[in-house]
Amino acid sequence: MRDNYRVRTDLALETTERFAQGHVEIRGVEIQEDYNEEKDIRTTVVWIRTENGAKAMGKPQGHYITIEAPNLSIPDEDYHREVSEEVAKHLRHLIDLETEKSILVVGLGNQAITADSLGPHVVENLHITRHVIREYGLKGMGEEKMHQTSGIVPGVMAQTGMETSEIVEGVVSETKPDVVIAIDALAARSVKRLNRTIQITDTGIHPGSGVGNHRIGLTEENLRVKVIGIGVPTVVDAATIVHDSMAHLLDALDEAEQKEFLEEMISPHLHSMFVTPKDVDETVKYLSFTISEGLNLAFLQR
Amino acid sequence: MRDNYRVRTDLALETTERFAQGHVEIRGVEIQEDYNEEKDIRTTVVWIRTENGAKAMGKPQGHYITIEAPNLSIPDEDYHREVSEEVAKHLRHLIDLETEKSILVVGLGNQAITADSLGPHVVENLHITRHVIREYGLKGMGEEKMHQTSGIVPGVMAQTGMETSEIVEGVVSETKPDVVIAIDALAARSVKRLNRTIQITDTGIHPGSGVGNHRIGLTEENLRVKVIGIGVPTVVDAATIVHDSMAHLLDALDEAEQKEFLEEMISPHLHSMFVTPKDVDETVKYLSFTISEGLNLAFLQR
Amino acid sequence: MRDNYRVRTDLALETTERFAQGHVEIRGVEIQEDYNEEKDIRTTVVWIRTENGAKAMGKPQGHYITIEAPNLSIPDEDYHREVSEEVAKHLRHLIDLETEKSILVVGLGNQAITADSLGPHVVENLHITRHVIREYGLKGMGEEKMHQTSGIVPGVMAQTGMETSEIVEGVVSETKPDVVIAIDALAARSVKRLNRTIQITDTGIHPGSGVGNHRIGLTEENLRVKVIGIGVPTVVDAATIVHDSMAHLLDALDEAEQKEFLEEMISPHLHSMFVTPKDVDETVKYLSFTISEGLNLAFLQR
Amino acid sequence: MRDNYRVRTDLALETTERFAQGHVEIRGVEIQEDYNEEKDIRTTVVWIRTENGAKAMGKPQGHYITIEAPNLSIPDEDYHREVSEEVAKHLRHLIDLETEKSILVVGLGNQAITADSLGPHVVENLHITRHVIREYGLKGMGEEKMHQTSGIVPGVMAQTGMETSEIVEGVVSETKPDVVIAIDALAARSVKRLNRTIQITDTGIHPGSGVGNHRIGLTEENLRVKVIGIGVPTVVDAATIVHDSMAHLLDALDEAEQKEFLEEMISPHLHSMFVTPKDVDETVKYLSFTISEGLNLAFLQR
Repeated sequence: MRDNYRVRTDLALETTERFAQGHVEIRGVEIQEDYNEEKDIRTTVVWIRTENGAKAMGKPQGHYITIEAPNLSIPDEDYHREVSEEVAKHLRHLIDLETEKSILVVGLGNQAITADSLGPHVVENLHITRHVIREYGLKGMGEEKMHQTSGIVPGVMAQTGMETSEIVEGVVSETKPDVVIAIDALAARSVKRLNRTIQITDTGIHPGSGVGNHRIGLTEENLRVKVIGIGVPTVVDAATIVHDSMAHLLDALDEAEQKEFLEEMISPHLHSMFVTPKDVDETVKYLSFTISEGLNLAFLQR
Repeated sequence: MRDNYRVRTDLALETTERFAQGHVEIRGVEIQEDYNEEKDIRTTVVWIRTENGAKAMGKPQGHYITIEAPNLSIPDEDYHREVSEEVAKHLRHLIDLETEKSILVVGLGNQAITADSLGPHVVENLHITRHVIREYGLKGMGEEKMHQTSGIVPGVMAQTGMETSEIVEGVVSETKPDVVIAIDALAARSVKRLNRTIQITDTGIHPGSGVGNHRIGLTEENLRVKVIGIGVPTVVDAATIVHDSMAHLLDALDEAEQKEFLEEMISPHLHSMFVTPKDVDETVKYLSFTISEGLNLAFLQR
Repeated sequence: MRDNYRVRTDLALETTERFAQGHVEIRGVEIQEDYNEEKDIRTTVVWIRTENGAKAMGKPQGHYITIEAPNLSIPDEDYHREVSEEVAKHLRHLIDLETEKSILVVGLGNQAITADSLGPHVVENLHITRHVIREYGLKGMGEEKMHQTSGIVPGVMAQTGMETSEIVEGVVSETKPDVVIAIDALAARSVKRLNRTIQITDTGIHPGSGVGNHRIGLTEENLRVKVIGIGVPTVVDAATIVHDSMAHLLDALDEAEQKEFLEEMISPHLHSMFVTPKDVDETVKYLSFTISEGLNLAFLQR
Repeated sequence: MRDNYRVRTDLALETTERFAQGHVEIRGVEIQEDYNEEKDIRTTVVWIRTENGAKAMGKPQGHYITIEAPNLSIPDEDYHREVSEEVAKHLRHLIDLETEKSILVVGLGNQAITADSLGPHVVENLHITRHVIREYGLKGMGEEKMHQTSGIVPGVMAQTGMETSEIVEGVVSETKPDVVIAIDALAARSVKRLNRTIQITDTGIHPGSGVGNHRIGLTEENLRVKVIGIGVPTVVDAATIVHDSMAHLLDALDEAEQKEFLEEMISPHLHSMFVTPKDVDETVKYLSFTISEGLNLAFLQR
């Protein structure tokens, strides 16, 4: 199928489901699932171990932790705290808090588009400590153990004229953080997953991902520093929705026929469109708070 | 077909096309089209003259002027001015500038959702004169002829706890404008029409219309003052896109079978989702400027 | 002294201090002070009982509760909660929760000027329930006792062309709340009080008060419903600062000489200027959260 | 006088006035004034030629162009264009358009504080071309001659934890522009100059300048690329206003006595306060538009 017509998802979990339907095990990919019934939080770790696994999944090697919490978009402060703690727990696994003491949080996305504004909102809610610790030491914060956190909202290429990666590379090379955490709004395949799923990965942000389809990724390879990506699916590609709905209808056709048919049917307009829920403003507000609290819990040792 | 599954459009022009496909004339509805080749602006006036016409169209009696300008979403200042002038021209027909001297512009929609923020943006760009003229007279503005313009952004029910119509009714009964102009982001049926069409109507805003699906309209009936609605389609209902794409596939079935099939296929999730272009932020910025300039041209006599 | 050169304060507490310096008791005015040492919160209730007291104070008859909390502008969540509870406690005294069940919160001020944006921010953080309770009853909220809260941000005259009072009167007459609570950023006389003082009064909002100097007040008299004003001083008039600094220097002169001198010295430009702290953005964010939590505590019975 | 109590101004023009009062010529400083009566625009070029001149002025060697336009804050589109053209004219002198083809515009200041938001607003209004020209060449823009413009809003240290200069240095070393133009809101000494003066300088941005008092400047020395600073005074330090008003009173005292007296009188609180006009939101909106149009005129060759 031409690249344009590939069903797109930024969630590794959704990619595994494609295989799971046929109950096929994917070589080089380990999947571990954990369900906390009381809290109604399901955590799935997809570990792509080999080059082969990466090819099969269409995603780079590494860990993809998915936290699914159906009530995540509902305004319940206590629930959020549990998800925040879950986020903090996984960050503490991925980051060596003893040796990696300075963290740069990058809020990707377009502040002016509600569905793409998750990253900027997270940075806005963060407790920023780097300048205080550098000026006054840890005593300045009244804490013995605390990370140096800094944050930046690089904007999008149409506003800056620069690749996001250029800006972040520059800031990283000047301020030399031990770890970069990039926050982004993602595209899912299924509307059911919108705004109730948080993905954490140690593979960073890859080209073609995110609501705005980054052209160049943010990875350890280009930033020369560990990069963790945290994302929440807030949109579905419009073409995907039509594709999925029609695919069922076309079960009778073979794959080549299906492909030809869908390429004709799906308007090229649809590929620059996205689908998003009507209450996206409230949800992005709550989600960004939950994630920034997760970061604050992980790094401020309160 | 159940109401949920009806194909939704706020554009009278799109409703007529449903009939036009069968080359059927609709009784009680007059359609007049005008194309300015040089400017590439097409203006269609749909006049619903009778109760029967209103039933057939599913829209109240009155005039629906549609200005289609394919390049409307492209940032070209000169082009915009021509569309602004087209908007001003139609407003001058719908409003008697000699006797109707005070105008309240209502910016409907949710400022926090990009695709629904057209109305608030238009009010932000308006030249507001009422308070100056009331305080200092027309001399205060250095103009001989000028309308009293006022503007309000009433917000949405989830933020205010009140129907928009309650707020506007209250403001109208206190400030007694001669005309209300309500600006709203609309839902279209076709993605091709998004952000390149402006609809002006003397029927006001009706229940169920707009991106946010107003529960109660803003009409002369409930505001007791002339109400003009100006709207631009910025979204398509997600269910509509799937519906339309699949309908072609189902041509073989009769209407009852189609209905049953689609009801099953279209996920109920989709009905709280909308489809919008990725560059919606830039476009809403330009569109709101074009419309507010249209209003400024019409009322400030500059 | 001409009205222009009067030292301006919206805080009744500061007006009493003028007298207090001479240890004069003001007839018709009762003052009661309470200091919670542990929480470092000082609460002063100024009760203007008579027409004479009102004249002496230059403020209408009624109660003025001032909560002073020096650490209010520092981001400490626990501290804030105590101030929120203090706000809630006083609201429960001023409002009869058994009979006055619907509350309209009005966020006064200019969203576009940081120092004047307290009111809009408070409304943004409020839990709004009116539309849910009216649609589904109290069961819809999962609560037995809960107030109907609604909120509006009316904007400022330069943006709307309408007096704020016109807008609020209209909304009140349509939606008929039992009580209006108007939130506003205030002008203080002393820079020491900025951002660490909350004033609650049952006299509403009066002409000439607030950062934007309302031309017409929001009072029980013009809204025909109980009006409570809640304000935080975020600015000092620039002329006041110069006036105060110089007054000390002029102690040798008699009052008439002082007056003449100051009128000459203080640039008329200064009267359209205000003084505000450089960290006003952080502070308004925290203060608005504290106040909206106070309202949520008072009305949502959580 | 201790540094705290020095009268602060970011305008070279105001520094010269200190000397001018005594009709003293300053060695190593050349001043040239030009008044366009028709347009009511006064342009003053202060050229600090020598190290001695720099010491006397307390500002680094270089050119300081001040455009004073009394009506600048009044919304008159035609007037603005003339000021925009004046800005463009001076930029074309300071930049060699034939060889310096790529421009990075840095919007300094705090978006959340109205009086400090000039820089971010200017970047928002800029036509950004770098990404298009790099992708499609000049043909992509439909122009033969056009500069590569890029823009960034680096935020302030309290939000990012990083020095602004660290961020800009990083971005400059990655994207290698020929020239950096930094836009900032300035502090003036006189309220009369607020919002009606534009200063353009080839010395960049210096430590201690701007509303937020940058700790480290943006200069050719630290960025290794030509840096032009464009600023508009939007605030006066609160201490300065009091200082100036009182200084007149103290004429009788000698300088040492004055100093001692003022140090005692001026509240230390005042040094973290600023004075700004009440209509600062409207003005910043118009000013940012005028400046960004000046940049667009200079670089887009339209």
